[in-house]
Amino acid sequence: MTGDSADPDHAAMSDRLMTADTPVPLTELSEWKRFALAAQTCAPRPDALDLIEAPGLALDSSGQRHSPELMAAGEALLRARDFETQRERLLAGDPVNVTEGRAAWHTALRAPEAPAQVRAERERMDAWVRRADAERRWRHVVHVGIGGSDWGVRLAVTAFGYAGTWRDVRFVANIDGHAIEGGLAGLDPRETLVVLVSKSFTTAETLENGARAREWLAGAGLDPAAHLAAVTARPDRARAWGVPDNQIFHMWDWVGGRFSLWSAVGLSTALAVGIDVLEGLRAGAAAMDAHFTQAPLAVNAPVRMALAGVVNRSVLGHGSLNIAPYDSRLANLVPYVQQLDMESLGKSVDVAGRPVGVPTGPAVWGMPGTDAQHTFFQWMHQGSDGAPVDFILCRQADHHWPAHHRQLLANCLAQREALMRGKSLAQARAECLAEGMDAARADWLAPHRVHPGGRPNHLIVLQRLSPYSLGALLALYEHRVFTQGVIWGIDPFDQWGVEYGKVLARGIIAELDPSGQARAAAPAADDSAVRHDASTRHWIDRLRG
Amino acid sequence: MTGDSADPDHAAMSDRLMTADTPVPLTELSEWKRFALAAQTCAPRPDALDLIEAPGLALDSSGQRHSPELMAAGEALLRARDFETQRERLLAGDPVNVTEGRAAWHTALRAPEAPAQVRAERERMDAWVRRADAERRWRHVVHVGIGGSDWGVRLAVTAFGYAGTWRDVRFVANIDGHAIEGGLAGLDPRETLVVLVSKSFTTAETLENGARAREWLAGAGLDPAAHLAAVTARPDRARAWGVPDNQIFHMWDWVGGRFSLWSAVGLSTALAVGIDVLEGLRAGAAAMDAHFTQAPLAVNAPVRMALAGVVNRSVLGHGSLNIAPYDSRLANLVPYVQQLDMESLGKSVDVAGRPVGVPTGPAVWGMPGTDAQHTFFQWMHQGSDGAPVDFILCRQADHHWPAHHRQLLANCLAQREALMRGKSLAQARAECLAEGMDAARADWLAPHRVHPGGRPNHLIVLQRLSPYSLGALLALYEHRVFTQGVIWGIDPFDQWGVEYGKVLARGIIAELDPSGQARAAAPAADDSAVRHDASTRHWIDRLRG
Repeated sequence: MTGDSADPDHAAMSDRLMTADTPVPLTELSEWKRFALAAQTCAPRPDALDLIEAPGLALDSSGQRHSPELMAAGEALLRARDFETQRERLLAGDPVNVTEGRAAWHTALRAPEAPAQVRAERERMDAWVRRADAERRWRHVVHVGIGGSDWGVRLAVTAFGYAGTWRDVRFVANIDGHAIEGGLAGLDPRETLVVLVSKSFTTAETLENGARAREWLAGAGLDPAAHLAAVTARPDRARAWGVPDNQIFHMWDWVGGRFSLWSAVGLSTALAVGIDVLEGLRAGAAAMDAHFTQAPLAVNAPVRMALAGVVNRSVLGHGSLNIAPYDSRLANLVPYVQQLDMESLGKSVDVAGRPVGVPTGPAVWGMPGTDAQHTFFQWMHQGSDGAPVDFILCRQADHHWPAHHRQLLANCLAQREALMRGKSLAQARAECLAEGMDAARADWLAPHRVHPGGRPNHLIVLQRLSPYSLGALLALYEHRVFTQGVIWGIDPFDQWGVEYGKVLARGIIAELDPSGQARAAAPAADDSAVRHDASTRHWIDRLRG
Repeated sequence: MTGDSADPDHAAMSDRLMTADTPVPLTELSEWKRFALAAQTCAPRPDALDLIEAPGLALDSSGQRHSPELMAAGEALLRARDFETQRERLLAGDPVNVTEGRAAWHTALRAPEAPAQVRAERERMDAWVRRADAERRWRHVVHVGIGGSDWGVRLAVTAFGYAGTWRDVRFVANIDGHAIEGGLAGLDPRETLVVLVSKSFTTAETLENGARAREWLAGAGLDPAAHLAAVTARPDRARAWGVPDNQIFHMWDWVGGRFSLWSAVGLSTALAVGIDVLEGLRAGAAAMDAHFTQAPLAVNAPVRMALAGVVNRSVLGHGSLNIAPYDSRLANLVPYVQQLDMESLGKSVDVAGRPVGVPTGPAVWGMPGTDAQHTFFQWMHQGSDGAPVDFILCRQADHHWPAHHRQLLANCLAQREALMRGKSLAQARAECLAEGMDAARADWLAPHRVHPGGRPNHLIVLQRLSPYSLGALLALYEHRVFTQGVIWGIDPFDQWGVEYGKVLARGIIAELDPSGQARAAAPAADDSAVRHDASTRHWIDRLRG
């Protein structure tokens, strides 16, 4: 999703919006000051169970700071931010993406009463997949897309195809040539479908990788067109590029890349793990949409996660958020939420262009447990500040080894308990003595075994990893991010920060080209060559050719 | 690597060490105060090229704060920390792991004159792999290990086997039963070798997953022993478990798990991508060891990275470090460095058990570029504080599409330049006007297009991704981490923080078991059941059975 600011319709819409009421700066609100104070004076209370049963999952916030006073202050803050109106506008498809003057209407893609154009496109894609299934067509699928056109599909395919699928799916995202080389290696071109996903159909990575795949198909004596499919908001460009009309599926301008999993971007998912998976994902997300719309704020799961996120980031100062799915099938949930959260909330000015005044979105990172325990949990327990954690687990496993699942669940609960509870110096010393050390050694070693404790977390429990519960989980994160955007007063749907690097890269590509032709093709007015810092200059000269 | 504190030899050695001289607390050193002041008063100067040519790679520190005054203060700080003696002790195999009373002698594994036992074991393993190669034995390898017994192998296999290998290697780490289910699915047991890697041969995940693999082999009517190999410091336990002697390869107690890539843990690497890869990795690492030992501090790559890391974390307060390899083959470098750094430096007390007094190891996270650009670079550019970045690229690609490589390099240089240079409000406004916006809209939109700039980074350039350069890169990170440990005064080789969760997990596993037998088997003295917080108690009751 690129900022298409030159489009006259967008500019006009945005002109209206920029003159509309903009929120008061957060830090000037008395409701913010009261909220921050309530958070500072509220201790973590894991002994007061704080549980929400939401569609597809339960959210336990006991490990966060929580109290009736803090909740009341949070409700007042949301009222001051006009949260309910903002939520209505989101769900109605109003242009909530203020700086780009368009909607962020991903909820329409999964609504029981989806717009007619959405339903029609979905039926067209389903029919196409059903026919391919019936014909046992395409043993290999090469999914070519990046960012929002990549993570959602990877997530769903890993979640539901973890033990292999009859169609194998490869993912090619990076412009690095080794990615497409590895993506095509060993495949039978006659049995391969290449799916290009790009909303604008101008994404450099996707078109370059697609061109290599097209050459590979042609080199095998095949008609590439028969082996190409595209998902895009610009079918005209896909057609011009060589994809036949009946294999072009539409997405819409009013859905951002990081929310596009719910659209025809799911084509590769459907080919790998079945069209029922898409239906289940949508149903779960729609149920979470309804919960987000209807549940009172105190028992509204996305709202509660958002309030805790603002406390951890803007009041307590935690710089990062760790996602710890205790389910190896959810490995790709981490980059998925990373993109959703960091691209949406990685901004420091509000919609009116003023500094927000408090730290906004954290760095989001993580890894499935128990791998994470053997990789960085040392740091979570005893590092200088640790990070808040979202623990995620499934009550029920889909394999047949109950002892494995018991160990998995116990590890999750135990790590969480250790992070909350901590271990004092006296406890550590007593342990050392109980292990048979003499007093001098126990005194010396005990400080190395102290855990400060009191580290915040959420626990999210899915009944099992079904498409429905995964859909609900993703919508939970989407709405949590939206709500934090409302509180901070920022536009979570734009991404102006990614444009600058693209512009600089175009100039450097030309400078790196030894033929000099591309260099000459760079705009004459661009004097970036003389403006590079000494280090960039050095590397351009050294890497040329 | 578990803390085996009950071992009398370790305890005795540690007793000697705990009474030895311990460093002065960092914040009491006048050299620390001068260093911190020099860092605070030194601006980032990308226009002053600051380049080190080290074995296998070049390190560009121009994007960090650097000046002759800061370097002099850093040298004084290292002298005050007795850095040269500490480095000598590390390389001599002295017990630098103070709290566990043992060496961290991973450099011996790759030294040109490695100890005789190391060379003998290496030759035994090489011969075994050569024979398997000659016999075209084992089409499938299932590598079962976790943490330090997993990431190094994944890294090397992805780096050099990215386009497929004639033996396919699956990795099974997590106790989650879906991991071993997916790891075995579709394989032909007759052609499968299962490699178990555990230093202690007690790692719960590895033994449980190994047991499932053993059942699967037996269920196919095979003799499991013929299909099992093990890498461990406890061959007695592997033998008792059912691995034949000639398929057990030794690692040593004086090498920590996160440094074990250089040992027989490389067995699966050798089977997948060849024994020459291991040799190249060792040669590159040994060359970096020599550089670390001999190069003056000002042009010593690991030392310079360590000083910059301490500035960014302890003076400027950056809470995380982003690793951005612009090479899709290096995707697993991120978890590898994450483990190395966070398990080593995720501590807040010094070797004498006193608080360090400044923030220590950061959260380490990342993703290959250009994927990262489409996932979280928005946040890097415009988020509240961003993160220091280690950019890594290869001058030369191993594919045949120069235009792809040019775009990859240009993207890396451009993102780095944008992060350093920033974009002012005046520049952003001028851009908006140049795009045809009227003044009112330009004024309104420009703040959304501002980049603060001045964000710190390293650029590491490999000539190409050879085993030699990757080995050098990994040793660079190892020694960078060690040097930061010396400055902070902490033991980078222990990991006491991971023990507590394991203990709690044992109790909860028993409580979750509906048969009650395991619960009865828990120590009678353990009253953890009554001591759980309300939330943990709730979930144990709800998840039982």
